[in-house]
Amino acid sequence: MKIKPLGKRILAKKIEQEERKTSGGIVLPEGAQSDKVIRAKVLALGTDEKFSVKKGNEIIVSSFAGTEIELDNEKLILVKEIDVLAIIE
Amino acid sequence: MKIKPLGKRILAKKIEQEERKTSGGIVLPEGAQSDKVIRAKVLALGTDEKFSVKKGNEIIVSSFAGTEIELDNEKLILVKEIDVLAIIE
Amino acid sequence: MKIKPLGKRILAKKIEQEERKTSGGIVLPEGAQSDKVIRAKVLALGTDEKFSVKKGNEIIVSSFAGTEIELDNEKLILVKEIDVLAIIE
Amino acid sequence: MKIKPLGKRILAKKIEQEERKTSGGIVLPEGAQSDKVIRAKVLALGTDEKFSVKKGNEIIVSSFAGTEIELDNEKLILVKEIDVLAIIE
Amino acid sequence: MKIKPLGKRILAKKIEQEERKTSGGIVLPEGAQSDKVIRAKVLALGTDEKFSVKKGNEIIVSSFAGTEIELDNEKLILVKEIDVLAIIE
Amino acid sequence: MKIKPLGKRILAKKIEQEERKTSGGIVLPEGAQSDKVIRAKVLALGTDEKFSVKKGNEIIVSSFAGTEIELDNEKLILVKEIDVLAIIE
Amino acid sequence: MKIKPLGKRILAKKIEQEERKTSGGIVLPEGAQSDKVIRAKVLALGTDEKFSVKKGNEIIVSSFAGTEIELDNEKLILVKEIDVLAIIE
Repeated sequence: MKIKPLGKRILAKKIEQEERKTSGGIVLPEGAQSDKVIRAKVLALGTDEKFSVKKGNEIIVSSFAGTEIELDNEKLILVKEIDVLAIIE
Repeated sequence: MKIKPLGKRILAKKIEQEERKTSGGIVLPEGAQSDKVIRAKVLALGTDEKFSVKKGNEIIVSSFAGTEIELDNEKLILVKEIDVLAIIE
Repeated sequence: MKIKPLGKRILAKKIEQEERKTSGGIVLPEGAQSDKVIRAKVLALGTDEKFSVKKGNEIIVSSFAGTEIELDNEKLILVKEIDVLAIIE
Repeated sequence: MKIKPLGKRILAKKIEQEERKTSGGIVLPEGAQSDKVIRAKVLALGTDEKFSVKKGNEIIVSSFAGTEIELDNEKLILVKEIDVLAIIE
Repeated sequence: MKIKPLGKRILAKKIEQEERKTSGGIVLPEGAQSDKVIRAKVLALGTDEKFSVKKGNEIIVSSFAGTEIELDNEKLILVKEIDVLAIIE
Repeated sequence: MKIKPLGKRILAKKIEQEERKTSGGIVLPEGAQSDKVIRAKVLALGTDEKFSVKKGNEIIVSSFAGTEIELDNEKLILVKEIDVLAIIE
Repeated sequence: MKIKPLGKRILAKKIEQEERKTSGGIVLPEGAQSDKVIRAKVLALGTDEKFSVKKGNEIIVSSFAGTEIELDNEKLILVKEIDVLAIIE
């Protein structure tokens, strides 16, 4: 079973706080500010032809954007590429 | 009796929570977040010429979009394609 | 005496709840949700050249759109075509 | 002394409730809903070249649009043509 | 000392209530509604090339638009031409 | 040390109330209304090519626009030219 | 590990209050107003081709714009170039 995002949307898997601290140097702000951004991994691109992000990219997304869904116990987000702030290289 | 959506709208039948849990692996979030998305099956496309979804597609729709109507005891929604987040393949 | 809608507006006659239940299988949602849609019959098209609806069509209209007027004890609405959700065929 | 509307505005004279009931069959809704529409007669067109209404037309205007002024004890409104809902023929 | 409006703005001098009643037949509405319109005389046009109003014109302006300033005890307004409702001829 | 405004912004120095009263005849309104406009002198233009104001111009600016900064005890504002209401000549 | 901003965004490092007072003459306003602007140094430009700012530029940014993240104990912001008010030269 697969989820195909429509238009300029991408499907991404949220990276949990614990995972983030050990796997890399980036720590997104704690407390109130940690609600502002989400770190996630791109799983699928939408039906549009042109994207700046690629499958597999780790991205920083505004947490005020996108919609959360749950698939096989994984937390996913459907978000428009314009709300992706940056790629973590 | 048939309902023909106008413009970029589609008509879809809502898939109930119980049906969803048994028929597939996707579980949309519980509680407050379950209000954010609806899973539905496309019944008819609007009068516009071009659509990314097809009749029969299972879709995830933002629950803040569209309008609910009831036909022969089925819960239907009329929603613009731009508010369809993804297709479940 | 006639009412000629301007621009992309249409004039339609509201179909009452009782009439709806007997004349066809479509029942628009009860309670709070029944405030969201109106079922109506198109009486006249506006001054624009192109319309997707025709005189005589039964339509579903968002009840948040349009303006109600009363002519010879009939409840009419003046509504832009873009706020017509679907045609009942 | 004359008032020349600017741009796409028109100047119209409001038709009072009493006058309306006798002069024709159209009765705009009573109570809360009567605040939504105004019946008026077009006195002058704005400086734009193209109008769908003509001088002398009786019109139905959204009462949320336009600005009221008073000239020689007559209640006038200055309103953009786009807020004129229909012409009464 | 001169004030040169920028862009599509005009500079106009407000005409006081007393002056209005004697100099002409137009009386703008009293009470709450008198806050909606201002009568004024155009003193200068902005830096744009094309204006529908001319220097010397008496105008009716929405009182929700523009900014008031005071020069040598005269009440002036700086207002965009699009907020001028009509010219009094 | 210099501040170079970006895009259509300009950098201007605020002219204080005392200075205004002696140096010229323009008095901006007192009390609540004095919060609506600022008188200022243009220090630098932004990176765009075309401006209607020049370095040295005295300007009237909407006080709801722009951002205040402080440099060497002078009160400066960074404001888009579109929010400059007029030039004082 | 690197952060690559997307589109017209830039990545910048916030310059702290103490650092600001000693390193240069610009003091951004204290108290309530100090919340309106941020001084920062550009670390990386987004994926768009054209930028008015360069890597290394010190910039003044509206503090109502952009999103803060934290990397290796440094406070960074991801902000669209259009929200950069000025460059400090």
